[in-house]
Amino acid sequence: VVDHVESLVAVTPETFRKERNIDARILHEVTEIDLKGRRVHVRKLDAAKEWWESFDQLLIATGALPIRPEVPGIDAQGIYGVNTLQSGIEVRQVVDQQGPKRAVIIGGGYIGLEMAEALVRRGLEVSLVERAPQVMVTLDPDMGALVSEALMAVGVALYREESLQGFEAGKGRLQAVVTDKRTLPADMVILGMGVRPNAALAAQAGIPLGERGAIQVNERQQTNVASVWAAGDCAQSFHLVSRRPFYVALATVANKQGHVAGINIGGGSAAFPGVVGTAVSKICDVEVARTGLQERELKELGWEYVSGKIESSTRVGYYPGAGRITVKAFAEKGGGRLLGGQIVGQEGAAKRIDIMATALHAGLTVQEMANLDLSYAPPYSPVADPVLVAVRKVAQLI
Amino acid sequence: VVDHVESLVAVTPETFRKERNIDARILHEVTEIDLKGRRVHVRKLDAAKEWWESFDQLLIATGALPIRPEVPGIDAQGIYGVNTLQSGIEVRQVVDQQGPKRAVIIGGGYIGLEMAEALVRRGLEVSLVERAPQVMVTLDPDMGALVSEALMAVGVALYREESLQGFEAGKGRLQAVVTDKRTLPADMVILGMGVRPNAALAAQAGIPLGERGAIQVNERQQTNVASVWAAGDCAQSFHLVSRRPFYVALATVANKQGHVAGINIGGGSAAFPGVVGTAVSKICDVEVARTGLQERELKELGWEYVSGKIESSTRVGYYPGAGRITVKAFAEKGGGRLLGGQIVGQEGAAKRIDIMATALHAGLTVQEMANLDLSYAPPYSPVADPVLVAVRKVAQLI
Repeated sequence: VVDHVESLVAVTPETFRKERNIDARILHEVTEIDLKGRRVHVRKLDAAKEWWESFDQLLIATGALPIRPEVPGIDAQGIYGVNTLQSGIEVRQVVDQQGPKRAVIIGGGYIGLEMAEALVRRGLEVSLVERAPQVMVTLDPDMGALVSEALMAVGVALYREESLQGFEAGKGRLQAVVTDKRTLPADMVILGMGVRPNAALAAQAGIPLGERGAIQVNERQQTNVASVWAAGDCAQSFHLVSRRPFYVALATVANKQGHVAGINIGGGSAAFPGVVGTAVSKICDVEVARTGLQERELKELGWEYVSGKIESSTRVGYYPGAGRITVKAFAEKGGGRLLGGQIVGQEGAAKRIDIMATALHAGLTVQEMANLDLSYAPPYSPVADPVLVAVRKVAQLI
Repeated sequence: VVDHVESLVAVTPETFRKERNIDARILHEVTEIDLKGRRVHVRKLDAAKEWWESFDQLLIATGALPIRPEVPGIDAQGIYGVNTLQSGIEVRQVVDQQGPKRAVIIGGGYIGLEMAEALVRRGLEVSLVERAPQVMVTLDPDMGALVSEALMAVGVALYREESLQGFEAGKGRLQAVVTDKRTLPADMVILGMGVRPNAALAAQAGIPLGERGAIQVNERQQTNVASVWAAGDCAQSFHLVSRRPFYVALATVANKQGHVAGINIGGGSAAFPGVVGTAVSKICDVEVARTGLQERELKELGWEYVSGKIESSTRVGYYPGAGRITVKAFAEKGGGRLLGGQIVGQEGAAKRIDIMATALHAGLTVQEMANLDLSYAPPYSPVADPVLVAVRKVAQLI
């Protein structure tokens, strides 16, 4: 939906240099961190040059890597992990120039679903293979089912509870995807199996890793080595609801962590308290949002909880454009503290998750939330916002 | 924008009777409350019948009345206060059947602005007279100015800092509106000068009134008379930010108060803690929202505060449909507790006020809010939600 790739670049190296006095070097790879020598080994990718560069303060912001399954044929041409601007450009070029007809998406997370939508829009025949019973495993299965429906409604062939076995290739080019149940002919494959922290460089230098292999940091984004910091998709976060270390690779979190690291490196003082697990996505006309803990996480923690789910309307029923919205909420059994929420619905549904995210930060109970003075006018909401209706339902079960 | 009047009726007397076992009598007016005798005097409007009806519990839910200025010509035909379904039907009939060409709106509040939009859409020449320097006085003047601009952009002739003197009529029919600065020819006038509690019946019975003449109630919606309750636009509320009695005539508040009164009358136990002053509106493509205290209220209270205003985008800039949004926020000087917020912007702007409303309920500071884990994806928001950007700006001034 965006015409020019350039508009996706927030800040160019030129702007960094000219406006912010930052020497941002692209096509330079750091291959080693020498903590004792306080230096990094740099390789220039577009020239045969390598050297050691010294530092006073070091920020590791190496991001995440798409998970590539170790299955036969994984190195065939035509398999893409869409995690950088460049990999997105490649996929678009392939679609523009080679006219692929059949795409198979492996994994029904945010990237998988967004790519499924994008490729359907471009006229490809799209299949999606998901190991779980429903797509979008960051939602509970009953809420994920609503997303599965939406996906099928736009014409995506959905294969659930099916796992990838490998790829068939001819002359090094992808020809088909093999699952435990079938073989799907494919001209291109998108890997949407999630990401993992790109923390190998830090690990090799002896910097401790934590949750899911992400770099351990304190509230100031400091690693356990003085003057070495980490932020973004390579770094660990803290979950403010579970009160446990947490890994999440999302732009908002990376942004906040980078901001805090920057202030501290510059001599100021800032802290990043953590996240509550908020995320949103859009799959065709369906908006999807979640925050806090979901059923699976609550069970893993062994916490006692109650939950409620309601169906309502995004606007007053009589107002043009009113669409369906389903809201699910969780609260602590007994006390009633909100623990999480999930929303699936049409236009205007998703951003309501911010009400629940704010309530999670504040530690509000569903009883307190039942009287929230939320905004109402017919173009925006029924007189009782769907989030209110959901928390009221949960409040009755406390 | 709604085709059938019937779709605006939430519950009909028939549904009340058949599905809820409630004898809802329309066209019955209560003309007197006899507290000692525990009875009300009822007059049937479509028949010459009057009688006393006894009660065990009495709920007064008489709503509000549009303010009608006592100026010459106010009784001329063609002047409408749009506050009931019936008055809305009348205005539509006049527009449909009499083809009025020029409408003048008196007052730039919610009703005035929504009617201005509706009549412009129906092809009328619309003027709006507002006593204040800007429309929408529930916003600060700088934010109201953005709404004034939007109104003029759709072709409404806006006369600010101008006050109504009277109406000119011929043979009892409206001909013109006279202000202190000009005479505006008019085929119809909409009174949008606000409402006042319809509490005369309660007052006559000796039930104490409070803020702006609304019926005094406690948290349970109980008046100072045992077994007599009040809820909705006739009843007083409590402002959770100023910690003072407050009057607001909005459906959300009426709804919550009615719910609480109903539970208590039925023998249960419920409380309505109060409001934070949230309201939204839509004027053509401009969304308007406010919550908490505005500058005028803060000055009246004599509270020390800081404020910040930012401009941002409703979505990531490169995403189709991204529009402008202006967010203003107030916080307690020193402590940083959020005190209020205002939003004016394009599609997707207004509902963000709920983040601030929830934060007001929870008593969050802008420093705490600076790290809120709000949802982000390009179709919904820039990576830092405009509300975050605004509270961060205020946090730097604490």
